[in-house]
Amino acid sequence: MPKATINSKSAKLSKSEKRVAEIYRVAANIINEKGYEATSMNDIARKLKLTKAGLYYYIDGKRDLLFAIIKFGMQQLEDNVLEPCQAIEDPEERLKEIIERHTILILELGGSISILTDEIQSLTPANRKKIVAMKRVYMDFVRKTLRELRSQKKMRQINLNITAMNLFAVILGVARWYSPRKGWGSAKVAREISKFVMGAIVK
Amino acid sequence: MPKATINSKSAKLSKSEKRVAEIYRVAANIINEKGYEATSMNDIARKLKLTKAGLYYYIDGKRDLLFAIIKFGMQQLEDNVLEPCQAIEDPEERLKEIIERHTILILELGGSISILTDEIQSLTPANRKKIVAMKRVYMDFVRKTLRELRSQKKMRQINLNITAMNLFAVILGVARWYSPRKGWGSAKVAREISKFVMGAIVK
Repeated sequence: MPKATINSKSAKLSKSEKRVAEIYRVAANIINEKGYEATSMNDIARKLKLTKAGLYYYIDGKRDLLFAIIKFGMQQLEDNVLEPCQAIEDPEERLKEIIERHTILILELGGSISILTDEIQSLTPANRKKIVAMKRVYMDFVRKTLRELRSQKKMRQINLNITAMNLFAVILGVARWYSPRKGWGSAKVAREISKFVMGAIVK
Repeated sequence: MPKATINSKSAKLSKSEKRVAEIYRVAANIINEKGYEATSMNDIARKLKLTKAGLYYYIDGKRDLLFAIIKFGMQQLEDNVLEPCQAIEDPEERLKEIIERHTILILELGGSISILTDEIQSLTPANRKKIVAMKRVYMDFVRKTLRELRSQKKMRQINLNITAMNLFAVILGVARWYSPRKGWGSAKVAREISKFVMGAIVK
């Protein structure tokens, strides 16, 4: 029974998006491990078992790679979390859906892309501006949901901005600690994350 | 009035520990920004306005620096959180104190040292083992506290291991989002963090 729910929350990626996602995931892993400056296109090509030319078919160069990965992650967030959740009227139900969908997206994309999304300091100023704007849209949406909860007197007496930060910390934390070895499916993890966060926020 | 409480939870550092902490904080900032491999001792010396020889007075070399910073952070955690909280009998009160003290420690040491504590993959196997052991002692202490809460029927129906991960994610999240510019004092932030986490965990 819960399968339908899980599927409906799964990220929808085309075949070529999946290939690109796989490249981004591998690249993000290496960058998170070695640091952006110390990572070479050769490192990434080797790990993907591609020639350097083969890698350049997908990626314009290291300079654009970091931006491409972060933008891809933010775009997936917009398509798979922001967009479907905007249609939900009730703020409590909407918040729960945001948390579960965001968690599932992180588990499906691989945590490394989400972790990299924090590393905007290596982007060019113009690209950084674009990512910051995409982040702001999402954060504003979450904060607006919290404000609606509060005006319905359903939110505990906690600071709204710190609460938003805590909410993101728990969801993004999954990207850092989750390991498939633990044997928890993404739907189970998503439910646990939403139980924890909803318990913290809702009276 | 709350001043006494804040002071009693503040990290206790001697003058020379404070100097070393300052060096570690600056080094951790640079390493977090540039990545461990791309960071040179020169980068760190320049930022501290020290000669390279001056820096070597405090640090044996880059090879040992990462280990020294992480060990310092874990030692502070042991002295300022683990040790004083072990004396608290009631698990609910103990958990609240763990959360507040850990948050205040992060804010006082500077978040970069805490963030670096996650980067154990660049350590030598022997040093990694030491840090993993120190982390395990702390995690076991937190999990033991959660188990006691559960056996007193005070804990919500949530997975204990995921809860422990969420608790660390919220506390360490502070290291990532907090900025003194926001004008929140460390005691206020610590109280908000503990309200959020205790609300999530305790029935």
